[in-house]
Amino acid sequence: LNTVAIVGVGLLGRSLALALRRARFKGTIIGVSRTPRQLGPEFNLAATLEQAAPVADVVVLCAPVLAIIADIKRLGTMVRPGTLVTDVGSTKRAILDTAHEHLHGAVFLGGHPMAGKQVGGMEHAEAGLYSGKTWFLVRSVEPDPPVVAEFVSWIKRIRAKPMFIGAEDHDRSVALTSHLAQVLSTSLAATVADSDLADKARDRSGPGLRDMLRLAESGYDMWHDILATNGDLVAEAVGRFAATLDQFAQPGQYSRCGHLFDRASAFAREIRKKAK
Amino acid sequence: LNTVAIVGVGLLGRSLALALRRARFKGTIIGVSRTPRQLGPEFNLAATLEQAAPVADVVVLCAPVLAIIADIKRLGTMVRPGTLVTDVGSTKRAILDTAHEHLHGAVFLGGHPMAGKQVGGMEHAEAGLYSGKTWFLVRSVEPDPPVVAEFVSWIKRIRAKPMFIGAEDHDRSVALTSHLAQVLSTSLAATVADSDLADKARDRSGPGLRDMLRLAESGYDMWHDILATNGDLVAEAVGRFAATLDQFAQPGQYSRCGHLFDRASAFAREIRKKAK
Repeated sequence: LNTVAIVGVGLLGRSLALALRRARFKGTIIGVSRTPRQLGPEFNLAATLEQAAPVADVVVLCAPVLAIIADIKRLGTMVRPGTLVTDVGSTKRAILDTAHEHLHGAVFLGGHPMAGKQVGGMEHAEAGLYSGKTWFLVRSVEPDPPVVAEFVSWIKRIRAKPMFIGAEDHDRSVALTSHLAQVLSTSLAATVADSDLADKARDRSGPGLRDMLRLAESGYDMWHDILATNGDLVAEAVGRFAATLDQFAQPGQYSRCGHLFDRASAFAREIRKKAK
Repeated sequence: LNTVAIVGVGLLGRSLALALRRARFKGTIIGVSRTPRQLGPEFNLAATLEQAAPVADVVVLCAPVLAIIADIKRLGTMVRPGTLVTDVGSTKRAILDTAHEHLHGAVFLGGHPMAGKQVGGMEHAEAGLYSGKTWFLVRSVEPDPPVVAEFVSWIKRIRAKPMFIGAEDHDRSVALTSHLAQVLSTSLAATVADSDLADKARDRSGPGLRDMLRLAESGYDMWHDILATNGDLVAEAVGRFAATLDQFAQPGQYSRCGHLFDRASAFAREIRKKAK
C-alpha cells in the first residue's frame, strides 16, 4: 500500500492514521474531512474525496453508517479499478448492499473494529485504540485480491484482531452483544430521568447505576444510523431480553430466579475475565 | 458508645470495624459470626449473639436481609432496654416491620449504606468502603434518643453521608436506582448466555457489554433476600422500564428515539459526573 485515504478524521479515522504510523507505515496518508480542519503530522495531506479517491490504493471510510453509505454511492465513479474501499461502520448489511449496487471495479471489504469511546472527536484519538480489539471483516469477493491480504496484514500490525464474518451474522451478533446493551442503558437512564426520583437519584444512587449508565452517555448521531440499518435485529434481541426480564415483573415468582442468577453470574464472569 | 457489637464480619461488617478504628473509635468492638473465624485486630473479641447483645450499647446487624430479620427476632429477649439495634440491609420495609413487632425496649434504627463490591467476604474489607457513600437511615421512634444521635455522628466520622428517609420511600428508591440495574444486568447476561452466540460472545464483545455485565457477577444469596422483600416494587420498576424499552422492540419507530437518547444522555452525564 502506497497511498491510504482516510475519509473522516475523527476518533476512529485519526486513531487509524496514528496506529499506522506507530506500526511504521511509510506511505502517504491523505485525510479527507467534510469540513476544513487542521490535521496532525500523521497525515501527509488534506484533500476532498474527489481529489483523494483517484490516487488512493485504499480508501477507508470512517464515519457513521449513513454517511458511509452516501460516500460509497459517490465513490462509484471516482476510484480506479482495483482500489480497495473499506469502512469502519457499526452495521454491515446495508453497507454491503450499497457496495454491491454502486461500487463496480473497486474491491469492497466491509469492516468494523470493536473499538470506541463514549466521546468522539479527533482530540480523543490514540495510536493504541485498536490494540487487542476484534476487527470484523466482511468479504464482497472471493478469493481475496492481494490488496485485501495486504490491508489485513496492516490490521494485524496495528495489533487489532481481524475476524472474517458474514454481514448477516455480524449484524445479528452486534445486535445482541452491543446494540442491546446500548438500548438497555439508554432506556434505564430515560426511565429514571422520567420518574419522580430524577432529582434525588444523584444522591441516592451507587456505583451500580453509574456503571449501567455509561453507555447512555453516547450521543444519538451514531445510534440513529445503527438503529436505521439494524433496527430489525435490535428489535429481535430486545424481544428475547424482554422475555427474560419478564420473570422479574411478577413478584412472588422469584423462586425460579436462582437458576437465572447462577447462569448469568457464571457467564458474566467468563466474559469479563476473557475480555480483559 | 463504649461497646459496639458487629453481627456478621464479612465485607460490610469488617469494613465498619476498620472504619471505626481509622476514625479513632476507642471503645470495644465485638465481632459476632455464625461460624467461628479468626478476626482481625480491629475487633477486641469474638462472641456469640447471646453473649454480645446484653453488653452492647449498639448492635449492628451486617448480613443479608432475611438473616437480619431472623436476628432481630432473636434479639427481642436479649438486649438491654435502650440498646440501639441497627442494620445495613438492602431493603427496609420488612426489617422495620419485624423490629416493630419483636424489638420492644430496644431502640431500632434501620440503616443501609450504599456501599459494596461484587465480591463479598472479610478479605475484601477496607476502612474506606463507606467514604463518600450515602448511608440511608430509617427512624422507628421520634424524636431521636441520644444513642441515635451518637451513632449518626460516627457515621459522619467514617465519612459516610447519613440520609434520613422513610422505609417505603427507601425501598421504592432503591428498586429504581439499584435493584432495577441489577436485574437488567442479570437478564442481559442470561439472554446472551442462552443464545446461539454464547460461545462466540467472548471474542465478539466490546467494553460496552463488559461494563453492562459487571453487576451480573453478583451472587444470588444477597439478591434472593432483596427480591423476597422488595419484589413488588422491583416489579413496578421493571414495568416502567419495559414500557420505555418497548420503543426499541418496534423496528421503524426510531424517529421517536432521538428525544429518548437526548434525555437519557443528559441524565446519564449528570448522574455520572455528580456521583464521582
